[in-house]
Amino acid sequence: MLVHHLYSGGKDSSLAAWILTRLGYEVELVTISFGLLDNWRYARETAETLGFRHRVVYLPGEILENAAKMAIKDGHPNNAIQFIHERALEYVASMPEVERISDGTRRDDRVPLLDLPKARSLEDRFGVAYIRPLLGLGYKTIRELTERLFVVEIRESEQLKKADYEVELRHLLREKGIDPLTIFPKSHYQSRVLGWREQL
Amino acid sequence: MLVHHLYSGGKDSSLAAWILTRLGYEVELVTISFGLLDNWRYARETAETLGFRHRVVYLPGEILENAAKMAIKDGHPNNAIQFIHERALEYVASMPEVERISDGTRRDDRVPLLDLPKARSLEDRFGVAYIRPLLGLGYKTIRELTERLFVVEIRESEQLKKADYEVELRHLLREKGIDPLTIFPKSHYQSRVLGWREQL
Repeated sequence: MLVHHLYSGGKDSSLAAWILTRLGYEVELVTISFGLLDNWRYARETAETLGFRHRVVYLPGEILENAAKMAIKDGHPNNAIQFIHERALEYVASMPEVERISDGTRRDDRVPLLDLPKARSLEDRFGVAYIRPLLGLGYKTIRELTERLFVVEIRESEQLKKADYEVELRHLLREKGIDPLTIFPKSHYQSRVLGWREQL
Repeated sequence: MLVHHLYSGGKDSSLAAWILTRLGYEVELVTISFGLLDNWRYARETAETLGFRHRVVYLPGEILENAAKMAIKDGHPNNAIQFIHERALEYVASMPEVERISDGTRRDDRVPLLDLPKARSLEDRFGVAYIRPLLGLGYKTIRELTERLFVVEIRESEQLKKADYEVELRHLLREKGIDPLTIFPKSHYQSRVLGWREQL
């Protein structure tokens, strides 16, 4: 039972990956890149430290271009992040070897998050099972599990070495002469997992 | 980390209980009864077979009375089942020893299911964490896990020896001279777990 799990190296996607192994799944971590930066290396590093298989899947650059346009038009990144995540799920779900896909999206996330019709549509269009181990967990539960499991580094998004969509999106905005801080929230803390605290 | 998990003996609530143990929680199964029947015994039997601690929590009979009125007025049981489940969660969440509550509700369930504002409200009002291990899983995933884990008996609801709200609700309707088959769907298959197939 192999699952392809979208992975950024953050605590949510790491916790979700751990839960999948606890349910008896074989997990292959997948980090999305648009080939603009090599920040997927941070996810690979964490994946290796945690003992997971890892691969990089390159998405067409026009997806990031469209996301950047959205973010500029909206003046905030939410729709752009949602757009990238939906395309990433579709891309991975369409790969012939993929039967199950997964991510670390949570109940309390605003974006990225697929509503029920979109989740079912993803499963139906691509013939996959879409598994979200954190969807039924609130912030208290996620906190108690991650604190027990992982050594986590929490930093302001601009400084953190991480591998989520946001990093390449910020980079592309800068290339277009737009300061990401006019679009992304000023103080936005994100996390990166450095290793196991206790493996259960 | 003790969780009080609402438990009927069916495959969904059994799968959710198993997942909780895999996440490192200590699980106490809780079966709701209105004291009308002793069908909670089927849940206890399954709980013992699976090796879980189990207790019965009695809810005030007026909740079942109100639910029966709803079902009669509506001509279908959905609102009544939702009403009972919300009261059951509140009742268990309000018990002083309870810090975490859980149930086996699923992404694809219509009822009972708490939407996000209701789930957060439950957590906030009672100071508990509300954990739904199956919320992020679709029917394919639930099927593959339950088939691997459990020996399951599937029967028409009227015949199955089980311990969910429906049984006492049907009984109360009969006592009021109302045929439950005029309210519940004619062919409604439900499940009861008989034991482990393979414990992982």
